[in-house]
Amino acid sequence: MGGNKAVAYKGPGVVEVIDIDYPTFELKDGPGVNPANVGRKVPHGAILKTVATNICGSDQHMVRGRTTAPADLVLGHEITGEVVEVGPGVEFIAVGDLVSVPFNISCGRCRNCKERKTGICLNVNPDRPGSAYGYVDMGGWVGGQAEYVLVPYADWNLLKFPDKDQAMEKILDLAMLSDIFPTGFHGAVTAGVGVGSTVYVAGAGPVGLAAATSALLLGASAVIVADMNADRLAQAKSFGCETVDLTKGGPVEQIEQILGVPEVDCGIDAVGFEAKGHGEGASEAPATVLNDLMDLTAAGGALGIPGLYVTGDPGGIDEAAKKGALSLSLGTGWAKSLSFTTGQCPVMKYNRELMMAILHDRVHIAGNVNATAITLADAPRGYAEFDKGAAQKYVLNPNGYLDAA
Amino acid sequence: MGGNKAVAYKGPGVVEVIDIDYPTFELKDGPGVNPANVGRKVPHGAILKTVATNICGSDQHMVRGRTTAPADLVLGHEITGEVVEVGPGVEFIAVGDLVSVPFNISCGRCRNCKERKTGICLNVNPDRPGSAYGYVDMGGWVGGQAEYVLVPYADWNLLKFPDKDQAMEKILDLAMLSDIFPTGFHGAVTAGVGVGSTVYVAGAGPVGLAAATSALLLGASAVIVADMNADRLAQAKSFGCETVDLTKGGPVEQIEQILGVPEVDCGIDAVGFEAKGHGEGASEAPATVLNDLMDLTAAGGALGIPGLYVTGDPGGIDEAAKKGALSLSLGTGWAKSLSFTTGQCPVMKYNRELMMAILHDRVHIAGNVNATAITLADAPRGYAEFDKGAAQKYVLNPNGYLDAA
Amino acid sequence: MGGNKAVAYKGPGVVEVIDIDYPTFELKDGPGVNPANVGRKVPHGAILKTVATNICGSDQHMVRGRTTAPADLVLGHEITGEVVEVGPGVEFIAVGDLVSVPFNISCGRCRNCKERKTGICLNVNPDRPGSAYGYVDMGGWVGGQAEYVLVPYADWNLLKFPDKDQAMEKILDLAMLSDIFPTGFHGAVTAGVGVGSTVYVAGAGPVGLAAATSALLLGASAVIVADMNADRLAQAKSFGCETVDLTKGGPVEQIEQILGVPEVDCGIDAVGFEAKGHGEGASEAPATVLNDLMDLTAAGGALGIPGLYVTGDPGGIDEAAKKGALSLSLGTGWAKSLSFTTGQCPVMKYNRELMMAILHDRVHIAGNVNATAITLADAPRGYAEFDKGAAQKYVLNPNGYLDAA
Amino acid sequence: MGGNKAVAYKGPGVVEVIDIDYPTFELKDGPGVNPANVGRKVPHGAILKTVATNICGSDQHMVRGRTTAPADLVLGHEITGEVVEVGPGVEFIAVGDLVSVPFNISCGRCRNCKERKTGICLNVNPDRPGSAYGYVDMGGWVGGQAEYVLVPYADWNLLKFPDKDQAMEKILDLAMLSDIFPTGFHGAVTAGVGVGSTVYVAGAGPVGLAAATSALLLGASAVIVADMNADRLAQAKSFGCETVDLTKGGPVEQIEQILGVPEVDCGIDAVGFEAKGHGEGASEAPATVLNDLMDLTAAGGALGIPGLYVTGDPGGIDEAAKKGALSLSLGTGWAKSLSFTTGQCPVMKYNRELMMAILHDRVHIAGNVNATAITLADAPRGYAEFDKGAAQKYVLNPNGYLDAA
Repeated sequence: MGGNKAVAYKGPGVVEVIDIDYPTFELKDGPGVNPANVGRKVPHGAILKTVATNICGSDQHMVRGRTTAPADLVLGHEITGEVVEVGPGVEFIAVGDLVSVPFNISCGRCRNCKERKTGICLNVNPDRPGSAYGYVDMGGWVGGQAEYVLVPYADWNLLKFPDKDQAMEKILDLAMLSDIFPTGFHGAVTAGVGVGSTVYVAGAGPVGLAAATSALLLGASAVIVADMNADRLAQAKSFGCETVDLTKGGPVEQIEQILGVPEVDCGIDAVGFEAKGHGEGASEAPATVLNDLMDLTAAGGALGIPGLYVTGDPGGIDEAAKKGALSLSLGTGWAKSLSFTTGQCPVMKYNRELMMAILHDRVHIAGNVNATAITLADAPRGYAEFDKGAAQKYVLNPNGYLDAA
Repeated sequence: MGGNKAVAYKGPGVVEVIDIDYPTFELKDGPGVNPANVGRKVPHGAILKTVATNICGSDQHMVRGRTTAPADLVLGHEITGEVVEVGPGVEFIAVGDLVSVPFNISCGRCRNCKERKTGICLNVNPDRPGSAYGYVDMGGWVGGQAEYVLVPYADWNLLKFPDKDQAMEKILDLAMLSDIFPTGFHGAVTAGVGVGSTVYVAGAGPVGLAAATSALLLGASAVIVADMNADRLAQAKSFGCETVDLTKGGPVEQIEQILGVPEVDCGIDAVGFEAKGHGEGASEAPATVLNDLMDLTAAGGALGIPGLYVTGDPGGIDEAAKKGALSLSLGTGWAKSLSFTTGQCPVMKYNRELMMAILHDRVHIAGNVNATAITLADAPRGYAEFDKGAAQKYVLNPNGYLDAA
Repeated sequence: MGGNKAVAYKGPGVVEVIDIDYPTFELKDGPGVNPANVGRKVPHGAILKTVATNICGSDQHMVRGRTTAPADLVLGHEITGEVVEVGPGVEFIAVGDLVSVPFNISCGRCRNCKERKTGICLNVNPDRPGSAYGYVDMGGWVGGQAEYVLVPYADWNLLKFPDKDQAMEKILDLAMLSDIFPTGFHGAVTAGVGVGSTVYVAGAGPVGLAAATSALLLGASAVIVADMNADRLAQAKSFGCETVDLTKGGPVEQIEQILGVPEVDCGIDAVGFEAKGHGEGASEAPATVLNDLMDLTAAGGALGIPGLYVTGDPGGIDEAAKKGALSLSLGTGWAKSLSFTTGQCPVMKYNRELMMAILHDRVHIAGNVNATAITLADAPRGYAEFDKGAAQKYVLNPNGYLDAA
Repeated sequence: MGGNKAVAYKGPGVVEVIDIDYPTFELKDGPGVNPANVGRKVPHGAILKTVATNICGSDQHMVRGRTTAPADLVLGHEITGEVVEVGPGVEFIAVGDLVSVPFNISCGRCRNCKERKTGICLNVNPDRPGSAYGYVDMGGWVGGQAEYVLVPYADWNLLKFPDKDQAMEKILDLAMLSDIFPTGFHGAVTAGVGVGSTVYVAGAGPVGLAAATSALLLGASAVIVADMNADRLAQAKSFGCETVDLTKGGPVEQIEQILGVPEVDCGIDAVGFEAKGHGEGASEAPATVLNDLMDLTAAGGALGIPGLYVTGDPGGIDEAAKKGALSLSLGTGWAKSLSFTTGQCPVMKYNRELMMAILHDRVHIAGNVNATAITLADAPRGYAEFDKGAAQKYVLNPNGYLDAA
């Protein structure tokens, strides 16, 4: 019981598997733990034996060294697990339950949680509303790319799969419920996607592919995914999307070739602040995606923006970028009466419904994002390949549950 | 140009093809025309050469003699056509356009139309809000089961297909946009169907099958269709629905066998006031479906009620039914905090989006409802077979457009 | 600390103040406690010293002997209090906090609570979704018309007033947050009331007056309140409502005299199943209000139905009423495309916002419902006068907090 | 009948009353008329004798010479009038009707109009979606600061007051329905204002005051209006708003002094691209208001942005401003999960409801914005004083209707 191997950030470009303590029902001091959270009691928590824990694009911001993450911060906020221990305050979750963990940590007691805004819970992060496991400046909750992990407010946070055998048959799909599937879905919903919509998704990484999957699930008539990475575009094509290759120039002309009109009803930004310009070898240009979306979304449309924008980016390309200031052509959007929705996806608003769609075979998210299980020891390779643009979603398998999957 | 063959109600159980006048831009006196509408000028109208015009379950109420419809009333409110003439007030619709006609006639000028409530337009029916072509007590607009038909407020009412050739390839699907596809979709939407929902549809006639199709298009995880007619249930199974056979008893136990729980998230009434009780040979019992839905819908759910309920039914089984009074166990619904949405579907709220889904091959409504083209001359046979429970949606083909379909 | 005086139901027409045990963090056996709830541990609970606890119209159903409530059931689900003790699982509520208690007991952990449907919580009542303090068949949670009361899931359920002194200045207003103000507000919201709406409220009891207050707060242009009780109608007039006196006949003509048209946009049923017919001395007729609302609400409108409808009423006027079956003219509603929303108000969805409106002096609910503080000992008199139709909302004052109010 | 005096833009800083032709049912060539609109027939139009026609802040952009408006362009898009002539295609509007004209011109036939998005009608402006009377690059529809004006699609566009005498008693209030009252209301609605909300309104010009009025009408608990103009702040105070004086520094500290917390639930931008920085004598800084709103709006909040942002501003303070590029700290908004709604208000979505609130004395918008009637001849003075910051809303009175008001 004493051991617990985990993936930690060591420095720019370096992740390693290290040994950390087995969790207890207390948040102890450690790399990145907010002082105000040190010693916090977690009687409402559950300890999970990890079944699947995915590498996320947002982890890469830390690994690339573009944040203030300290060495030895344990990574991982996309967690699926089996409950092995519950605190004395847990009433409805039991040992043996197979569960999905929303990446947003939330208390289930504050105003925002009561309003379903679990991405901005007021009680878990002393710095600001909102938190996540294994992430810099998010309160210090230990990451879940580990053999075992503590989940606070377990009755509130955990989504229990109704049948364990059935769940294990679709476990790679269900593993996407902790973050990217709801995040992509939130992008689609907030972009106004409904039956018959035409949709443009900027970015064919896992979140972009999840957004495209979601748009189709919501009944979109045409979903166009844009990227510069041919493998990722091929992945989008594999499940019925149209594609725009941004190495060949801007998106508007290519949209017109596909749809007959140069615009779509709904725009989704699945890229965020590390956006690049158009054309082969384009350099970083943080406002590109948002300005593109204002150009190519029809008047009256909406933009869903799950892609991350930051308040400061020490590695930004210029002074404005370093301060998180974007040069936006907002007048273009204003003339078209566009609306914009930003922020973390409140996973709990969507994960049960998406679980139902998976369990009833209505969607195959693992295949669409090319989910690939690897061992915990292989995490460094997974990070490296993902950073190079592999058209794969890496799922760590710390305890062998996925060997049959 | 002078002739115009049309399907007319002649008396209980009898429809016939008769000769009527070719339309002009005026609503002339005739069977069922409201006196206040006689002589109404229609410079905003378009004359269509009918491409497809479907027999609807609600036509059967008249044909069975359960209304005050007069002899020679021309039937038909599900119309798809080609524009052959436009009035002087028409600006955006042109001769040659291929169009779908919402069955609700609406003016596009009143408060309700401005609020998208085109099913209760205030300006087209002197008797009450709401109107339709070829229907008793709906103002007297001439029915569209004819070679030619007049559509008022053409710029507002008509949905133009963007490409005629493309449209003709899917014309049987597009023919469902005038009524049953939006009507079923409205049932699903107002029942709260979304991604992951479990759904029960009472009735496997064309509207029920359209509601089931819509629920799947909206991302429902499981759709259960109930009926007593084996052929219609087989039709529901053919596109991925589960089924409940009501000749074998009530729905709750069968739902539990399918889902593992005895309830669904969303209930749709695609039957209406001519409902029957359960079990082989059950007799008419108008409140059966609504009481069933309150029993089998989970607390917090919603009921979509596209099935027709009437203010009076001269052919009702008892005094209460004749007055349109239903004996409802509303306390059951109240204890569960259910909500209920009734009324005609406002077709215009949905038809463009559903057209997009059809044109982009995201849904195959014609196949799902077993749309079957027959000649105008065969209309009497179509009415008779449909009344006997044929698992088909009959589409009249007055001008041969569908011969290739 | 050992004593606790409380108001109990003793038999039809009789309530008495009795001595019960001081609460502990466990639900012990007692009158009306569901066996499955006996011995339930409540470490997440808080014990309140009652500041205000109101008599509710729904208590009267029990007191009149129209339910299966057992003798000695402690009444009271409208509770405002000061926290005097918290269980070991309570984290954010502290001793000394002044709080409002939503009458719906909810767990804050189940699917329905996560969806803000706290009126149908799945974990607090073994019989069915939804619960309340001091109410028959609601799980057996002890009522709050007492000096002290236990509130489970305190972090979730309690609404803390931000400033105690400020709160005590408006304590009679804030005391309405536990039930009738949100309940009336829910009625108005689900009836679609918005800026400019014309609204009809059936019933000028406290919930009806709260619904009328809410409609005005939501910006309604005209609010018409109907009743047979002159004092209650005078109360409605006192804060700007129009009135309909049902002793003089049905509502439609009177509405036309007020508005110039015989219909309103929004209808609210604040009466429920104990409705009477129209005219002086009319007898009970349970479907009257709903049938009236379908007649007098304009096409496209909505009905909010906070008034209680039951699944069985042993004291009903006929066999149908005893089974909870209502004879509804649903066809009238269907022809107008009306929607209907039933059920308990999920108080937590609204109470914080309404508290803000009270604290900022935007609404004076206590005055509008004529809130009147009386001693706990006077509770039997309060019940009797309220049952006779007093135009007052009785607020019990078990611990003297309200003496200054 | 031949004459028609009108207010025209003559050049930077200069407006004059000129003589133009009396309108006919055709859009003739003239200053600013789009060539594709020249000769457009308007049989669906009505000619109004102007009752009230207001000077708008957005007119000032043209008058200040910051647009490409040509000389002799007739100004005015806030029009209330009496119908004196209707085209042959008009059916429901009649000579003698007293009407309000939404400033957005819309056709009532296109997809966007059918979706209630009348601010981006597809059929009235050959350049882009959306149009308005008397405005540069909006299609060329002649402005309404004139004795007579043509309104196209009259049945669709005009809001008829139900009773002329009643309307004339509140005519200055009703005159605000053509633009600023709905525009402010749209700002409040899209900022998520509801009962109990705390609201910050940037800008105390007429639109800001209308937004504040709307927030109160919607039940906001506290409305804080910010400006640098003492007279305008006094105007805001006069009807119950709190105020922030931006000559004294940024808004956050002042909000904290008022509310006890440094943030609000809802932010409204009633300033737009001509924003200035903070502090006495601050110079133009176009992104100030939006960056402020992201700072001061609580996580989970929304921003309503009725303030105009442009695609290009030849008079902008730097190269970025000239191209309409704003330097936005979007990361701040993203971290808080804010949403943003931009664009013209679709007046028709709100004007009937707001009219009802005015007619039933629920709101006094004319007083709140200090509406002041002046003669047509005095228009140049009105423009000049308004430009200098007069805390008045100037209403032109070309035909003497307002002399009694």
